[in-house]
Amino acid sequence: MPTITAFKSSPDKGVGLARDMRVRWSLEEVGQSYDVRLVTFEEMKQPAHLALQPFGQIPTYEDGDVALFESGAIVFHIAERHTGLLPSDEAGRARAISWMFAALNTVEPPIVERDYVKYFEADQSWQVEHLSMVDDRIRTRLDQLAAAMGELIWLAGGFSAADVLMVHAICRLEGSGILEEYPILMDYIARATERPAYKRAFDAQYEVFQKGSSH
Amino acid sequence: MPTITAFKSSPDKGVGLARDMRVRWSLEEVGQSYDVRLVTFEEMKQPAHLALQPFGQIPTYEDGDVALFESGAIVFHIAERHTGLLPSDEAGRARAISWMFAALNTVEPPIVERDYVKYFEADQSWQVEHLSMVDDRIRTRLDQLAAAMGELIWLAGGFSAADVLMVHAICRLEGSGILEEYPILMDYIARATERPAYKRAFDAQYEVFQKGSSH
Repeated sequence: MPTITAFKSSPDKGVGLARDMRVRWSLEEVGQSYDVRLVTFEEMKQPAHLALQPFGQIPTYEDGDVALFESGAIVFHIAERHTGLLPSDEAGRARAISWMFAALNTVEPPIVERDYVKYFEADQSWQVEHLSMVDDRIRTRLDQLAAAMGELIWLAGGFSAADVLMVHAICRLEGSGILEEYPILMDYIARATERPAYKRAFDAQYEVFQKGSSH
Repeated sequence: MPTITAFKSSPDKGVGLARDMRVRWSLEEVGQSYDVRLVTFEEMKQPAHLALQPFGQIPTYEDGDVALFESGAIVFHIAERHTGLLPSDEAGRARAISWMFAALNTVEPPIVERDYVKYFEADQSWQVEHLSMVDDRIRTRLDQLAAAMGELIWLAGGFSAADVLMVHAICRLEGSGILEEYPILMDYIARATERPAYKRAFDAQYEVFQKGSSH
């Protein structure tokens, strides 16, 4: 059974933004049970964790001799080894993989940047102005994503690893007011988060937060 | 033979920063010849290109029924279909794929952010202060990358797709003065860019710039 790592004390207080959520969700989609090793922020800086995750982040994934880091790599590894997260035809698989990388390298970066502005530029006189610039960059990407989705249910045929990564990336905008400008994307998120596998993954990471805050 | 797209008129003036460079380099490493279709900025916004690349970017990759977008996805597709860009053992392959995603989702985002600050915040009184904050984020990632490399020649055993993506991501810092703080990374870039495949790819993209600027 694979073992993943997750925050012992998640900075998001269990709302599901930490990237172990992507891995848990993927594992639930394919019906693969897993163990979780919780790590503290202090442990993440230690050599034992850095050998597994050179950037001192979570999640990691270990299964026998195989060890991975980066949520995108882990989700892809799960998708390759089970059915249900990648189309089986070559053209569909290529399209799904393209969308996986688009989620992580084109759509997510300005969304993560928004959090830097919110949390690390809070004392700056220019925070509001900078936030507005970053929000415009996010809207450019969401305009393009919504246009590409159109009437599609999922990004690449059936539900795939691309939807896990894309939905989780854009969910980080909840509370910003931006998603509400895109009914297509709101519906997309609703369809994805209503999946039983998403709910099981969400509950599992929420349980960690509840246990950690109960004493 | 696959066809890729590249800028008809690259904003970097042929210094090799456009992302078709990653794809050209990978194709040269595996000895796969290719055709190039040059696109203008106007063409990139048209429905024909958006059907291939929903975010209006380059590169794309077409080979028969298979079409991909996102340089990471294309490089991975090439690496999967040829020998020479991914370790053949499962554990090595997993490590290389982890580093591919790390290059694109952990190391590259603050480096790209630096360009936003340089070019789009040039009129802001806070540009210098913001640039210094972004540079600190870049240094955190380069500290970790250099520590992980240590005595390694390449990121995951032999030269791999992870090195194509990582080297190209950090090369964008040339001229910033930051790379010079990391002799390990300077040596890594030198080793990579001395490869004949890199040089052939570089020359091919430079030729496009030269032809485009000669009339």
